[in-house]
Amino acid sequence: MNSNSLGHIFTITVFGESHGTGIGVIIDGVPAGLPIDVAEIQEFVNLRRPGTDDIVTQRQEEDKVEILSGVFNGRTTGAPLTLFARNMDVDSRHYELYRRVPRPGHADYPAKIKYKGYNDWRGSGRFSGRITLAYVMDGAIAKKLLSDALGIEVMAYTKQIGSVKIDSIDIDKIRKNRYRNYVRCPDPKVAMKMREEIVTAKLNGDSVGGVIECIVDNVPVGIGEPIFNSVESELSKAMFSIPAVKGIEFGLGFGFANSWGSEVNDEYAIRNGKIVARTNNSGGILGGLTTGMPIVFRVVLKPTASIAKVQKSVDMEEMKETELVVKGRHDPCIVPRAVPVVEGLTAVVLTDLALQGGVIKKVL
Amino acid sequence: MNSNSLGHIFTITVFGESHGTGIGVIIDGVPAGLPIDVAEIQEFVNLRRPGTDDIVTQRQEEDKVEILSGVFNGRTTGAPLTLFARNMDVDSRHYELYRRVPRPGHADYPAKIKYKGYNDWRGSGRFSGRITLAYVMDGAIAKKLLSDALGIEVMAYTKQIGSVKIDSIDIDKIRKNRYRNYVRCPDPKVAMKMREEIVTAKLNGDSVGGVIECIVDNVPVGIGEPIFNSVESELSKAMFSIPAVKGIEFGLGFGFANSWGSEVNDEYAIRNGKIVARTNNSGGILGGLTTGMPIVFRVVLKPTASIAKVQKSVDMEEMKETELVVKGRHDPCIVPRAVPVVEGLTAVVLTDLALQGGVIKKVL
Amino acid sequence: MNSNSLGHIFTITVFGESHGTGIGVIIDGVPAGLPIDVAEIQEFVNLRRPGTDDIVTQRQEEDKVEILSGVFNGRTTGAPLTLFARNMDVDSRHYELYRRVPRPGHADYPAKIKYKGYNDWRGSGRFSGRITLAYVMDGAIAKKLLSDALGIEVMAYTKQIGSVKIDSIDIDKIRKNRYRNYVRCPDPKVAMKMREEIVTAKLNGDSVGGVIECIVDNVPVGIGEPIFNSVESELSKAMFSIPAVKGIEFGLGFGFANSWGSEVNDEYAIRNGKIVARTNNSGGILGGLTTGMPIVFRVVLKPTASIAKVQKSVDMEEMKETELVVKGRHDPCIVPRAVPVVEGLTAVVLTDLALQGGVIKKVL
Amino acid sequence: MNSNSLGHIFTITVFGESHGTGIGVIIDGVPAGLPIDVAEIQEFVNLRRPGTDDIVTQRQEEDKVEILSGVFNGRTTGAPLTLFARNMDVDSRHYELYRRVPRPGHADYPAKIKYKGYNDWRGSGRFSGRITLAYVMDGAIAKKLLSDALGIEVMAYTKQIGSVKIDSIDIDKIRKNRYRNYVRCPDPKVAMKMREEIVTAKLNGDSVGGVIECIVDNVPVGIGEPIFNSVESELSKAMFSIPAVKGIEFGLGFGFANSWGSEVNDEYAIRNGKIVARTNNSGGILGGLTTGMPIVFRVVLKPTASIAKVQKSVDMEEMKETELVVKGRHDPCIVPRAVPVVEGLTAVVLTDLALQGGVIKKVL
Repeated sequence: MNSNSLGHIFTITVFGESHGTGIGVIIDGVPAGLPIDVAEIQEFVNLRRPGTDDIVTQRQEEDKVEILSGVFNGRTTGAPLTLFARNMDVDSRHYELYRRVPRPGHADYPAKIKYKGYNDWRGSGRFSGRITLAYVMDGAIAKKLLSDALGIEVMAYTKQIGSVKIDSIDIDKIRKNRYRNYVRCPDPKVAMKMREEIVTAKLNGDSVGGVIECIVDNVPVGIGEPIFNSVESELSKAMFSIPAVKGIEFGLGFGFANSWGSEVNDEYAIRNGKIVARTNNSGGILGGLTTGMPIVFRVVLKPTASIAKVQKSVDMEEMKETELVVKGRHDPCIVPRAVPVVEGLTAVVLTDLALQGGVIKKVL
Repeated sequence: MNSNSLGHIFTITVFGESHGTGIGVIIDGVPAGLPIDVAEIQEFVNLRRPGTDDIVTQRQEEDKVEILSGVFNGRTTGAPLTLFARNMDVDSRHYELYRRVPRPGHADYPAKIKYKGYNDWRGSGRFSGRITLAYVMDGAIAKKLLSDALGIEVMAYTKQIGSVKIDSIDIDKIRKNRYRNYVRCPDPKVAMKMREEIVTAKLNGDSVGGVIECIVDNVPVGIGEPIFNSVESELSKAMFSIPAVKGIEFGLGFGFANSWGSEVNDEYAIRNGKIVARTNNSGGILGGLTTGMPIVFRVVLKPTASIAKVQKSVDMEEMKETELVVKGRHDPCIVPRAVPVVEGLTAVVLTDLALQGGVIKKVL
Repeated sequence: MNSNSLGHIFTITVFGESHGTGIGVIIDGVPAGLPIDVAEIQEFVNLRRPGTDDIVTQRQEEDKVEILSGVFNGRTTGAPLTLFARNMDVDSRHYELYRRVPRPGHADYPAKIKYKGYNDWRGSGRFSGRITLAYVMDGAIAKKLLSDALGIEVMAYTKQIGSVKIDSIDIDKIRKNRYRNYVRCPDPKVAMKMREEIVTAKLNGDSVGGVIECIVDNVPVGIGEPIFNSVESELSKAMFSIPAVKGIEFGLGFGFANSWGSEVNDEYAIRNGKIVARTNNSGGILGGLTTGMPIVFRVVLKPTASIAKVQKSVDMEEMKETELVVKGRHDPCIVPRAVPVVEGLTAVVLTDLALQGGVIKKVL
Repeated sequence: MNSNSLGHIFTITVFGESHGTGIGVIIDGVPAGLPIDVAEIQEFVNLRRPGTDDIVTQRQEEDKVEILSGVFNGRTTGAPLTLFARNMDVDSRHYELYRRVPRPGHADYPAKIKYKGYNDWRGSGRFSGRITLAYVMDGAIAKKLLSDALGIEVMAYTKQIGSVKIDSIDIDKIRKNRYRNYVRCPDPKVAMKMREEIVTAKLNGDSVGGVIECIVDNVPVGIGEPIFNSVESELSKAMFSIPAVKGIEFGLGFGFANSWGSEVNDEYAIRNGKIVARTNNSGGILGGLTTGMPIVFRVVLKPTASIAKVQKSVDMEEMKETELVVKGRHDPCIVPRAVPVVEGLTAVVLTDLALQGGVIKKVL
């Protein structure tokens, strides 16, 4: 399968560039009969938009979703479902320079080599964070399908920005509060501190990184296909398709390194006649299969590569060292906008695995 | 593609169980004409064997590799290359209990639900670490192909076991020393301390986790297929097929969270007429493509789930809580044996991506 | 891979319905740097349009191709190339009846069962011949790529309509004349007789079938991937995605049944210093690989299922037998319009195989 | 997916060469719990063996099937099921010549070019009819699964050999009699005449072609995945992986060309409260979906390429024309031995499609 497609039964194929005609996705394998409300899709897609906070990019895109195929009489038909949003607010003035003088932290240099200079460089083209618009479009469909068929709920939130971190938080607060502020942190006090980190970055012409945690609740036991299509394999593959993601860990994650087995093995118990784990260090996944406990994972996002400070680079034509000031419109921290993106892609992966495993049997 | 296959052009399909007939792999897409020496494969495969140190499992498997297809006159033919090793030292006595009383930290419980009790439970069956024998078999082929065609060198080593960690080490020491001791740590002093952590675990009837770092040297610019087949996506998908891996990070990884962009962007320079990055926080990957700098990533492995201590579990037939002591033969720390596994799978992924991108053009 | 995608490296993913928003395709795996002229695509797409002959459907669609992604500065970028054409002339009045009373020869009945009634029934929805518009869009790209990179020429023509058949014809006449008349027959006299067959069908409220032959000239030796991705396997898979195709044969095809090996084996000779076959009964393919001789195959298309005559059917709601007169706008013979469709899909398949085999190395 | 794998959910990956270690297959996606009796597999595999009739090859292979993985306690486990049979009766003396002087009708010439001379040429290597041994191994599993889960019965038989043809025959005779004689023709009188055609070929140092018809009975409505994974697309792709197959037609097939729609549309009726078609010209498939009527298709096989007569060829090293007499052990007609191969692959394809469409829900 080609590199713009993800999934086995429930497959997304994404297309579009930052400053091209638009961004879109074909979703194949959607069961027939799922009710589709374009307003509901738009609502989820809007969670990724920069909003009006002054710490975000000045590019104003409506991200208006159009259904190009696959829906009839308000329901899916079993045919491929295509969603598309046109780019409206495009300004490519600053980018031609970067073909010659690559921006540190961006794909300019390897992309030019790989595509022999033919890649679309406007607004970073295919390497722009704007491509994640496709992930929330298809994510809206997947979230609905998971919810309607299995009652599964996918919830991501900002866990860390710079030095500000939320250590633990109740799942119900995440459920209710995560989209109540722009930084997507369910604890309003921490959210304010996170915002300050971003403001500091912006004022310094700098950028800052962070961590998103994703929790999937009400997961049936036994979703996942070992060996290579394990829940962890498939989720990680998807997450690294989000620009800026540089790491992922499940459950205790890197905390496992300095642990004894007796401390971190999740022992079993019976609660209300059901088998449960007494702890969830495994993040709801054993042997690549869901255990019935919530899936828990975290992804780290690096600081936005585009910063206003002078940086060292090279002139690729003259092959000499030079300096560069990156222009254009950018978010000083991409973490908040990536929260619904993580949710969407997580839902896409789990829908695919649930269909593969025959766990989703009925939609209507 | 099904869940026991990995790759797009250079594809591995793995099979076998811990206590079944054996472990094997079909490698499809190997270019014709690659010289194959079964002794060379065996040598790499042996690096995964437990060895004679007294801190390892007592199961003694020869892991003798047989070529079932795809090689003729000492070279690959373009036909699928099949490698197989029979299981010889099998003792399944203790495992039947775990169908009824699942071991904490193992896949017993979700596997039983998913496969309705029909999964092979002997020695953990398909969920055993023994399946990674297939990964070193195919890894030997991929390493040779990468080395012959592109001069790429894949090197993993043990970076952390429990509380003992190696902070930084010269790449040449990794190259020369990583397989000189059983813990697979290129610094002999640190290696001794790591061994003590494992001994402590073993004496306590416990187990311990750790971190493996993998470095890929001499990488051409532009390997990788964005979006979903990025280097990070494909490597992470593969790594999570190694039992016990619970996290992966590239370059600075989770360290990006608390960083400013200006600190961590890799600025460019020119050295000896070539474009290089002044730092390598990105781990040799930007936009999912290789930058020409070494690929650097780390995976965390949880402590072996099988420990000798009493653990709480449940009796799934009587649906009541109970206690369990896990028997069988186990490594108190799986990290050292996973080092060649990480190398092997990394080589498989990069071979596939190099072939996809047309970077490998000639083998002979 | 899902059922709306075809190919391994050069992949098409098609979408759209007869009376929906439009018809489109994502082409993934197009090498960067291929010059793209939308007028050239349109020209090839237009060959599939019904034209103005009075023996064709009255539905008038402009089939205006829009590029939604993947082209920049007149060249491909390496990103997915998306083509789309909106449906303009839609009349769905007659179709609702067929959900209840299925049309003989159409997919109405099995589609209703499979999709539980949710399939888009307007104009046959996803089962309409209109979906082949996507095949000529991507075919235009593939034809250009094959031609630019390898000089390969794909030529289809109408070999038979009803009782009128063209027995043999010179390849240069096919090259020059096949699109000179509406029936797509390179022999003008036979073309006139073919047209009469269609006129007869139309006057009788009936329809008629036919055969298309496809010849691929200037093919390098060794394209194709045995076993399952042989040239024959891949071409046949593609051809049966054209509605109405019910058979395919290569070279001598069904004529092989009543033949002795000594009559039909293609013996070798040397001509102008090159190895050639003295005959081409194999249709240019041995062992699933191209031999360097022209690829030759034929597909049979059944008569258009929609006819004006009274037919027996059933009322699926009342579960009783009934009669049906099919309304709507239809071609009495679909063969001529399928000629560029066969060409386009053939080019898609061969491009994919040539890229897989490393035969295409350079585009520019 | 690579060229030695077929299928999407129920996937086969085949390996092995004619004179190598053996022939095998990994079947992935077999539901857990299917009872497996190796004797039953062997029984079906034996139908492909040449038997003792004196018109067959003198190569005597036991084709003894060994299960290498995926079965435990007599049932499938959900893990990949691997079957393998070692080659025992190998004689490669005559083949080295054909690397230099390619046999007409064989893959020698294009294979040498494609694989740069590294392909295994012993006994035609990967291009031998012996690879179809893998298809009957996996076919035995698929036939059982289809039969147990859905009551589907797959039956192929020899319809034509040379000039001898069986025009129509009752399905019950096919069911009972097709394996009662070596030519696999359910009409004993016609079978004798067919045998005479083969004897004639053999006496003349020649070979002869033929046609196999395959009928699938008791098919549920709605199996198949349009567009590219239609029943016809998937079956044809599989059939062309059988060496010597050069054409396939469904239902009326090439007979559609000279037909009016009103003659060949399958009208509907109600029989015993169920919707049925009054005729079955469509071969049980409309819009790529099963209609509930029997699937009917025919494949044509060319005469065995290896004949004892002198043939013209070329010396590829000296680049001059020469003559060749092909030696080795061959069947003068491959059609009878291909009958269970067609059955097996058909079952594999339908199992995959039935699983994809959710039609198979329960195995046990």
